[in-house]
Amino acid sequence: MTSNDTLPGMVPFLPLIYVAWADGELTPDELGAFRAAIHRQPGIDAPSLAALDRWLDPELPLTAAELEDLLGRIHQHRDAYLRPGSSNGVGDVASALGMPYEDVVRELLGGVSDEAPSAAALRVDTAAMQQLLDGPEREARQRMRAALSQPAFRYRTGLGTGAYREQVSAWLQQLARDGFGAKGLPAELGGGGDLPGFLAAFETLGAHDQSLTVKFGVQFGLFAGSIHMLGTERHHRWVREAASGVLPGCFAMSELDHGSNVRDLRTEARFDRATGEFVVHTPDDGARKEWIGNAAVDGRMATVFAQLYSDDACHGVHALLVPLREASGQLLPGVRIADAGEKMGLNGVDNGSIWFDRVRVPREHLLNRHGDVAPDGTYRSPIASPDARFFTMLGTLVGGRISVARFALSAAKSGQAIAVRYAARRRQFGPAGGAERRLIDYQSHQRRLMPALATTYACDFALKALTRRYLGFRNEVQREIEVQAAGLKAYVTWHVTRALQDCRECCGGQGVLATNRIGVLKNDTDVYTTFEGDNTVLMQLVAKGLLTEYRQQFGSMRLGGVIRFLASQASRRIVASNPVAARKTDEAHLRDVEAQVFLLRYREERMTASVARRLKRLLDDGTDPFDAFTRCQDHLLGLAHAHVERVVASAFRAGIADAPATLRPILTDLADLHVLHGLDRDAAWFLAAGVMEGNKAKAIRSLVLQLSASIAPAAEGLVDAFGIPEAVLGTPIAR
Amino acid sequence: MTSNDTLPGMVPFLPLIYVAWADGELTPDELGAFRAAIHRQPGIDAPSLAALDRWLDPELPLTAAELEDLLGRIHQHRDAYLRPGSSNGVGDVASALGMPYEDVVRELLGGVSDEAPSAAALRVDTAAMQQLLDGPEREARQRMRAALSQPAFRYRTGLGTGAYREQVSAWLQQLARDGFGAKGLPAELGGGGDLPGFLAAFETLGAHDQSLTVKFGVQFGLFAGSIHMLGTERHHRWVREAASGVLPGCFAMSELDHGSNVRDLRTEARFDRATGEFVVHTPDDGARKEWIGNAAVDGRMATVFAQLYSDDACHGVHALLVPLREASGQLLPGVRIADAGEKMGLNGVDNGSIWFDRVRVPREHLLNRHGDVAPDGTYRSPIASPDARFFTMLGTLVGGRISVARFALSAAKSGQAIAVRYAARRRQFGPAGGAERRLIDYQSHQRRLMPALATTYACDFALKALTRRYLGFRNEVQREIEVQAAGLKAYVTWHVTRALQDCRECCGGQGVLATNRIGVLKNDTDVYTTFEGDNTVLMQLVAKGLLTEYRQQFGSMRLGGVIRFLASQASRRIVASNPVAARKTDEAHLRDVEAQVFLLRYREERMTASVARRLKRLLDDGTDPFDAFTRCQDHLLGLAHAHVERVVASAFRAGIADAPATLRPILTDLADLHVLHGLDRDAAWFLAAGVMEGNKAKAIRSLVLQLSASIAPAAEGLVDAFGIPEAVLGTPIAR
Repeated sequence: MTSNDTLPGMVPFLPLIYVAWADGELTPDELGAFRAAIHRQPGIDAPSLAALDRWLDPELPLTAAELEDLLGRIHQHRDAYLRPGSSNGVGDVASALGMPYEDVVRELLGGVSDEAPSAAALRVDTAAMQQLLDGPEREARQRMRAALSQPAFRYRTGLGTGAYREQVSAWLQQLARDGFGAKGLPAELGGGGDLPGFLAAFETLGAHDQSLTVKFGVQFGLFAGSIHMLGTERHHRWVREAASGVLPGCFAMSELDHGSNVRDLRTEARFDRATGEFVVHTPDDGARKEWIGNAAVDGRMATVFAQLYSDDACHGVHALLVPLREASGQLLPGVRIADAGEKMGLNGVDNGSIWFDRVRVPREHLLNRHGDVAPDGTYRSPIASPDARFFTMLGTLVGGRISVARFALSAAKSGQAIAVRYAARRRQFGPAGGAERRLIDYQSHQRRLMPALATTYACDFALKALTRRYLGFRNEVQREIEVQAAGLKAYVTWHVTRALQDCRECCGGQGVLATNRIGVLKNDTDVYTTFEGDNTVLMQLVAKGLLTEYRQQFGSMRLGGVIRFLASQASRRIVASNPVAARKTDEAHLRDVEAQVFLLRYREERMTASVARRLKRLLDDGTDPFDAFTRCQDHLLGLAHAHVERVVASAFRAGIADAPATLRPILTDLADLHVLHGLDRDAAWFLAAGVMEGNKAKAIRSLVLQLSASIAPAAEGLVDAFGIPEAVLGTPIAR
Repeated sequence: MTSNDTLPGMVPFLPLIYVAWADGELTPDELGAFRAAIHRQPGIDAPSLAALDRWLDPELPLTAAELEDLLGRIHQHRDAYLRPGSSNGVGDVASALGMPYEDVVRELLGGVSDEAPSAAALRVDTAAMQQLLDGPEREARQRMRAALSQPAFRYRTGLGTGAYREQVSAWLQQLARDGFGAKGLPAELGGGGDLPGFLAAFETLGAHDQSLTVKFGVQFGLFAGSIHMLGTERHHRWVREAASGVLPGCFAMSELDHGSNVRDLRTEARFDRATGEFVVHTPDDGARKEWIGNAAVDGRMATVFAQLYSDDACHGVHALLVPLREASGQLLPGVRIADAGEKMGLNGVDNGSIWFDRVRVPREHLLNRHGDVAPDGTYRSPIASPDARFFTMLGTLVGGRISVARFALSAAKSGQAIAVRYAARRRQFGPAGGAERRLIDYQSHQRRLMPALATTYACDFALKALTRRYLGFRNEVQREIEVQAAGLKAYVTWHVTRALQDCRECCGGQGVLATNRIGVLKNDTDVYTTFEGDNTVLMQLVAKGLLTEYRQQFGSMRLGGVIRFLASQASRRIVASNPVAARKTDEAHLRDVEAQVFLLRYREERMTASVARRLKRLLDDGTDPFDAFTRCQDHLLGLAHAHVERVVASAFRAGIADAPATLRPILTDLADLHVLHGLDRDAAWFLAAGVMEGNKAKAIRSLVLQLSASIAPAAEGLVDAFGIPEAVLGTPIAR
C-alpha cells in the first residue's frame, strides 16, 4: 500500500476502507461486495479505482502500520470530509456495508484529540519501518497475515482442552491447505522451494496463537523437516505427506530421564536380520518418549531417536520412522501413549508420552542419510567418527532453535503492541485538579516498556542476520552457527519471558483477562526457555564454544583441545582499559558506537581469559573436567551472556547501516537504548572491573531514562511497524 | 508428634503409619479402621497405644516435616524390621489396610540410598523448624492442614471454568462449615475471637489452590471484614451471614477507569430524603465496578464504594451494602453484571463487572462507622477531616495487603518445596563414564533456588513481625504500619513471581504440566503483583512515607510538610563511608551483621537525601508537585526497595535471636544469603557510591555461590519445615 499516492478520486472512500479493515470483521465475500459497490459509482477515475482495488484485496489485508498510515491520510483530508455534500455518491457504498457514512467520518475525525496516539505514531514512518522489518520475504509474510486475518482464525477463549485442540488441528489443516507446510521444500517434493519464505511465514504466525505456532513447528519443521534432512529418496513419500498435513506426525527425541542429554537416550532400535526389521523398544519407564507434541491425539507416525544396534554393536543415536496410529486414530500394536494432560500453557498442543514394546518397522524406515544398515546387518556411514555423525544429526535442530527464537519474538511483539497501545490510552492519577495522565507518560512505565521494545528490535535484526547465515551455509557443518543459534535462542526466549511479564504487569488486571491476550501469550511462551534445549544448558554450550573457538565438537566433553586453548588464554593480556573513558559521562561519548563496542568486547575478552585461567587451575589440580566446568558454571553463563549481548548489539548496528536514512535516527535511539540498558543492568561488573566509574554508571542510568522518555511518543509507531493485523492482535484493550 | 518418643511397642507399626499418611489416600473412616485394628492386637502397652492413636488422628494429619521425622525413626530401627519374624502380629493390621507388610518395609528401607534426600533433610531439625515457623498459631494451622488433607480437597486438573468455579465454591462452603470464616470475629458475632488464628489459617490455605485462597479472602476477609470494620451494630446480622458463608458477597471498590486511584471513584450513592433511601448509580461505563471477585456467579450482596451525596453535597468515598441477587441467583432490578471470562490464572474465582442503574437501598445499608446520613439528610462523621476519614476507611485494606503477601508467600513455599524435591531426585548429565548428577548439585541450579529460598524465609519472618504489630495496633491510625504493609506486599509478591518463574524453569518441561502444580501456582499468583494495590503504586507510597516520615496522610498530595522535610533532608550529611570496609573481603566481615546493616542503612539514607535534594530543586524551580514526583519515579522506587529490603533483613535477624539455639546456625546462613544476594544484585549502586570496591563485590558474589552450595544439602529439610501436607503439595514430581 505504501506506494499508493492518495488520488483525489480515492479520498471519499478512505474512511470506509479504514473501518472495513480496522474492525477485522469482513469476509472475502463482503470485501468483494464492497469493491463492486465502488465500481458501480459513476465518475471515479481509473487510477483511483485500481488503487482502491489494491486496498481491498482479501489476500493482502492492511496491517496495523498500514492502517495507521491510512488514518494519517484521512486526517490530511479532514477538511474534505467536513465539507457539506462530501458524502455525495459515497453514501450508497456505505449503506451497502451497513455503515452510515457521517457516523464513520465523525468517529474517525472526532475520536482523535490533540495528544492522540496517532499523532505520536506519525513520528515513525511506520510503513517504511514495516517494509524494512519484513525484508525480502514480505510476500510470504503478507500471505500469512491474510490467512490469519480470516474469520476462521479469530480467537475463542474459554474452550476446554479438547475443543481447543480440535480448533488448533483445524487451523493447522487450513494452513497446510494454503501451502504453508510445503513452502520450504524443493519443488521435486511438491514444495515451493522457498525456505526463507517458509521461515518468515512461520515467524509471522508467531504473533497469533502459540499452540498453533508450536504445532506448525512440530508438523512441518520437526517431523517433515527431520524426514527431509535425515532421510533419503526412499522417504520422499512421507516428506510429501507430512508437509501437506495428510500425515500428522511427531518428533520423538526427548525422554523422561534425558530431556536435554540426547547422547544418552535409552530407546533402542535393534536390527533383526532374520526379518529385515528394526525392533524399537523402550527398555524402562525412564526411557519413555516424553513431552512429545502431536502424540496424544493426532500423530500417526513419529521420527523416533534411538540407540541403533546391529549385531549387538551400538552405533549411537539414529532416527527412524515408527507408525503410531491407524488413519482411524486406533493405536498400533506395541505402542502405548499417555496424554500429558493440562499444562500451564499451549493447551492446544496434544503433548504425550510414548512407550514402544518391541515395535517392528521395516529396515527402510531408518532415516539413512548419515548411517545405514544393510540387509545383512552391516552398518555403514559416510561419516566415520561417531561423534561427528551424532553432531551432524543434531545439526538439524539448529533450524528449530532459530525458529523458536523467531516465533517467540513474534509473541513478544504481539504483547508489546498491546501493552504500548494500552499505555497510550489508559489514564490513571494526575496533578491536583488536572486531567489524569496516560500510563505511557510515567517514568516507571517508560522504563519497563521502552528498553524491552529496543531489545525486541535488536533481537529481530540479530535473528535475521543469523537466519541468513544459516540459510547460506546449511549444507556445511557450521559449529559457529550452531553456537550462535543456541545463544540467541536462550537470549531471546529469556527476553520474551521478561518482556511479557512486564507487559502483563503494565496492563494491571486487564493484562490477566484472556480476551486481552497478554496473559495467554505469557503462559504459552513460558516453556520456550526450557524446550528445544534448556536455556541454561544452551548457554553453557555457547561458553564452551567460545573457550574452544569452535574447534571442538559442539557440546563434546573431549578436553584435549580445551586445555591447549586454556593455556594460551590464561596468559593472554587484555587490552588495557582507559581510565579517562571510564569517567566520561557526556551523552556523545555514551552514545558513541566505538565506546559501546569497547565495553562489550572488553567484558567478553576479560571473562574469557578469567574463566580460562580458573578452569586451567582446576584441571591442573587434577579436578575432573566435568566437575571443573560445573564449578565454573556461574562464570560460564556470564561469559555466554556477555558474548550474545555483543553479537546482538553488533547485528543491530550492521542492520541500521543498511536501513533507509529516514529510519536511522529512531533505530539508532533504539540501539543505544538496548546497549545502555544492558550496561546499566550489568553495571556492577563494569564497575568492579574498573572500566566504568560511579559517575559514568549514574550517567548511563540517566540516559536510559531519558531515551525511554524520548522514544515513548514513537512507541505506537514502532509496534505498528511489526505489521500485526488487527485481527491477529485481536484484543479490546489494544483498539 | 514431635514430643512422642519412640516406644518399643510402637516400632512395628511405624512403617504402616508412614505409608498411610504419605500416600494421602486414607479417609477418616479408613484411619479409624486402622486404629481399631491396632487396638485389637494383643500385647501392646498402653503408652504405645496412646502414642499411636495420636499419630492416627484424622484431625491432625502428619505434615511433610513430621513424615520426614517418622522416616528417620524407621531407619533408626532398621535392624528390627529386617529381623525374621518381625512382622508377627503386625501382618493382620497390614492386611486390614491391604498393604503386605514385607513390601512396605522393603520399599521404605530399600528405597533409601546413601545420598538419599532424607539424609540431607536430617541436617535440619525439620520438626523444630516447623514449630518455629508455625508459631503460636500452630493449632489453627494444623486444623487447616487437616481440612485440606481431606480427599474432597484433592486437586483435579482439566476442569472447565464452570466446573472449576463450582469446585471452589464447594470447597469454600466446606471451610465455612468448618468454622474458618468466622474464626477471627468476636464471640458476640458468632466468631472464634481468634484473629491471629484466622490469619494463620488463611496463610496456611495459601499453599493449596489459589482460587480457593482468593475466594476465601474475598468472602471472609474483604466482604465480611468490611461490614465488620466499617459497619455498626445494625449490620451485625450480615457480618454473621457473610462469615458463615450463608451470604456470598463481593467487595466492590475498583472501577474500570480507577483501579488504583480510589479517591477518584465515580460510582454515586445519593441520599433521597423523600424515601429515606440511597440511590446507587454508575454514571458512565468507566465507573463500572471492575474485576470484582464473587460477582459473576455467587455474590448476593456487595460492599460498594461510592461517592456519597446528600443534599447535593459530596462527602467523599463511603461504603454501603447493595444486594445483587436473589437467593435463587436471579439478578435484582437495576443490577447488571458481566462475567470477566477466562483469565490467565485464578479461573476458579468468578470475577465480573458490575453496573448499577439507580439501585435503591435503605438508608441503614450505609456502613456508618466513620460517617452517617440522618433521616433528614444531615451528614455526620466522628472524623472531621475528609482526608483523615478517607484514609481511615482505606485503613481496612491494610489487613488485606498483609494477607495477600502472606498467602502469596505460601504459594511460593509450595512451589519451592516441589522444585527442591525434584532437583534432589532428578539427574541430568555427568562426568564421562560416571553417574549422572542430581540437578541440585549444579551451581546454576543452586544459585537459582537457594537465594530465593533464603528470601522466602526472610519474608516469612518479616510478615509475621508486621502481623504482630498490625494486630497490636489495629484500632489506631498507624501510618507506619500501612506503609510497611504496602512495601512488604510489593516486595513479597514480586519475590513470589520471580521465585516461581525460577522454580518452573528449574523443573523444565515437568514444571509446565498442571499435575506438577508449579505452572498452576505461577499462573495463579501472577496477578498478585498488581491487585490489592499495584506494586509500583504501593512502592511510591512507601517512598513518600519515608520522605514525610509518616507525618503526612498516606498518599496525600498536600506538600507543605513534604517541602519542610525536604529542606531539612537536602542539607543532611550522610555518615561517611569507611574506605577500609569498602575493600574488605574476608568471610567474617561479609557475614558480620553490623557490616551488612551499615551497607543497607547507608543506601537507604543516601537515597533519601539525594531524592529529597532532587525533589526540592524541582519544587523550588516551580515544577508542579505531581510532575516533580513523576520525574523522580525511578529514584523513588529505588528508595522504597532499599527501605523494604533493610526492614526484611532486620526482621529476620530479630526472629533468629528468638529462635531455638539449634536452629540459629542454618537460619543465620539463610539470613546472610538473603542479604548478600541482595547486595550482589544491587552491587552497581554500592560500587558507584564508593561504599564497596570491586574486590568486595566479587567476594560477595563468590560467597553467594558458596552459601548456596552449602545450604543445598539442607534444602529438603528447609522446605519440609514449611509443614505442607503431602496431599496439599499433591504432585508426582515431589514424591
